Amino acid sequence: MDAATRPSPEIVFDTFFAYQRTAALKSAVDLEIFTAIDEGTDRVQDIARRSGGSERGTRILCDYLTIIGLLSKAGDRYALTPESSMFLSKKSPAYIGTVGDFLVSPAIMRHFDDLTSTVRRGTTAPEGNIVAGQEQEHWVTFARAMTPMMMPAALSIADALDIGAAGRVKILDIAAGHGLFGTVLAQRNPQAEVVAVDWPGVLTVATENAAKMGVADRVRTVSGDAFSVEYGRDFDIVLLTNFLHHFDQATCVRLLEKVGRALKPGGRAVILEFVPNEDRVSPPMAAAFSLTMLAETPGGDAYTLAQLKKMIAAAGFSGEVTAHSLPTPETIVIATK
Amino acid sequence: MDAATRPSPEIVFDTFFAYQRTAALKSAVDLEIFTAIDEGTDRVQDIARRSGGSERGTRILCDYLTIIGLLSKAGDRYALTPESSMFLSKKSPAYIGTVGDFLVSPAIMRHFDDLTSTVRRGTTAPEGNIVAGQEQEHWVTFARAMTPMMMPAALSIADALDIGAAGRVKILDIAAGHGLFGTVLAQRNPQAEVVAVDWPGVLTVATENAAKMGVADRVRTVSGDAFSVEYGRDFDIVLLTNFLHHFDQATCVRLLEKVGRALKPGGRAVILEFVPNEDRVSPPMAAAFSLTMLAETPGGDAYTLAQLKKMIAAAGFSGEVTAHSLPTPETIVIATK
Repeated sequence: MDAATRPSPEIVFDTFFAYQRTAALKSAVDLEIFTAIDEGTDRVQDIARRSGGSERGTRILCDYLTIIGLLSKAGDRYALTPESSMFLSKKSPAYIGTVGDFLVSPAIMRHFDDLTSTVRRGTTAPEGNIVAGQEQEHWVTFARAMTPMMMPAALSIADALDIGAAGRVKILDIAAGHGLFGTVLAQRNPQAEVVAVDWPGVLTVATENAAKMGVADRVRTVSGDAFSVEYGRDFDIVLLTNFLHHFDQATCVRLLEKVGRALKPGGRAVILEFVPNEDRVSPPMAAAFSLTMLAETPGGDAYTLAQLKKMIAAAGFSGEVTAHSLPTPETIVIATK
Repeated sequence: MDAATRPSPEIVFDTFFAYQRTAALKSAVDLEIFTAIDEGTDRVQDIARRSGGSERGTRILCDYLTIIGLLSKAGDRYALTPESSMFLSKKSPAYIGTVGDFLVSPAIMRHFDDLTSTVRRGTTAPEGNIVAGQEQEHWVTFARAMTPMMMPAALSIADALDIGAAGRVKILDIAAGHGLFGTVLAQRNPQAEVVAVDWPGVLTVATENAAKMGVADRVRTVSGDAFSVEYGRDFDIVLLTNFLHHFDQATCVRLLEKVGRALKPGGRAVILEFVPNEDRVSPPMAAAFSLTMLAETPGGDAYTLAQLKKMIAAAGFSGEVTAHSLPTPETIVIATK
């Protein structure tokens, strides 16, 4: 094999060193490097002064961010890429830097400290289950951290439901978190009433967001566990956003049965999920999400559309099931009772 | 901005989640997934049985390895890529899976737990310095883990020195580690004598390797710190492989002066390093190595060729300085006294 065709070990090293990418992005967000550059502070000594970093540390971090595609560099000046400009500068309305507060918090990352044992067991460590109890502070962090991420999906759900033309509707938002999915529907339809279910600590975030968005009078909260709390009846719409992936298929079917009982005839369950193709290795982000669920939950997964349809049918939904792709890596699946 | 030109947040998520790539590769090496597939065990249930993993965990891990480019998948069968076949199957003579024992050991990775503070300080945490003391077990791990990686560079150094035609030569191998660079020269030139300097624990690895390679009678060891130990005199060749990057420039100059005093007139110092281009952001692997040195050392760096030449000149070397690129991401720089 000659040098030109001999494989390079670079992908092996790049993968072993990948954890440094995570750390570098987290630090850059903490130090507001992207915001500094967006403000025109584009040379090492000035960025260092603005961010409170040393010149040596700032120079090496900015070069590294350039190498991994989050900055560009010309001479001694750095510039944002289209992605870092839109998503990582605090000057951007689409800023999502806060997602790191949840995604790379020590409470979440520790699930990958011993992935080998997790693969052997086939499930998270007993003490590691992120969905085990309502006292877990990280769901409050999640609700606060992920809010900015969710708006494109929330608007897409409103469109898919044609909510503005739906008239008087009762909406149940299960594991509401930040509450954004319900509150956006309430904003788009002044006759919509929302019941948001979640653990008490998390609901304070949902309540804050409903107030900010001017729909607090039409958002009621029910605190408790989604599997045991009483939902009420005769809902037109039930939102199940980013929830099913935490559970195994039998548990999902049980929950969907409960959702079915809460819906009016002809009512719709709206599922937002990472939905990989049937090959389970594409598209990359949706498919890769399975590993997160392996590490962090007892039996969760990123389910394919065929799997979701099977669970929906098993739960007794007999109407149409439609899938709607999004500008984000998730998919909306709407099941009619 | 329409959907087609709107930037995607995918790179942001991919970077936040990058630590999972590290964990997945480490687990796959631990579980010998690549070796199993190389042996023809290519379906989930069979790989799981061979590796002692659960089917669920193995399925999700193999899919993830496919997503990140280390496996391919057709139907329910996985296959190696050219890179994982050459570098990650234990059946391959070029297997480098052991590098993870050093690269992603907890002792090394913890330097990235609080990179923000490191960037602020501009240097590793006082307790974090990987080059601070001779008692550090991780240099023994390094010497054992990295041996398989070093052979291509060792052979290239032998070629660059035309060592087979060099006649009777005295070689000093500073911070010899696995000792491979010196022992390969001794193998290629039966008149070569090698003095290997390193900390005592590490030298046991060098001695083992010299014995395995049949040159133990021409490899002598001197244990101690490279900055304080007496090297001896009249060396023809001094090897400084993967060493300078741990230190700041003033310290490197001091060491190079000491190397100069140990060399004969016309003798050659052989430096093996990650050498980024002057832009400091290419090629990616050499340039990215600066971040590792920021996190793990007081003042180390990946030095450009101009910086190396400046340090070599400041240390009093007046002969030619030549650079030789390698099939690996490093560069050989040879400085004549």
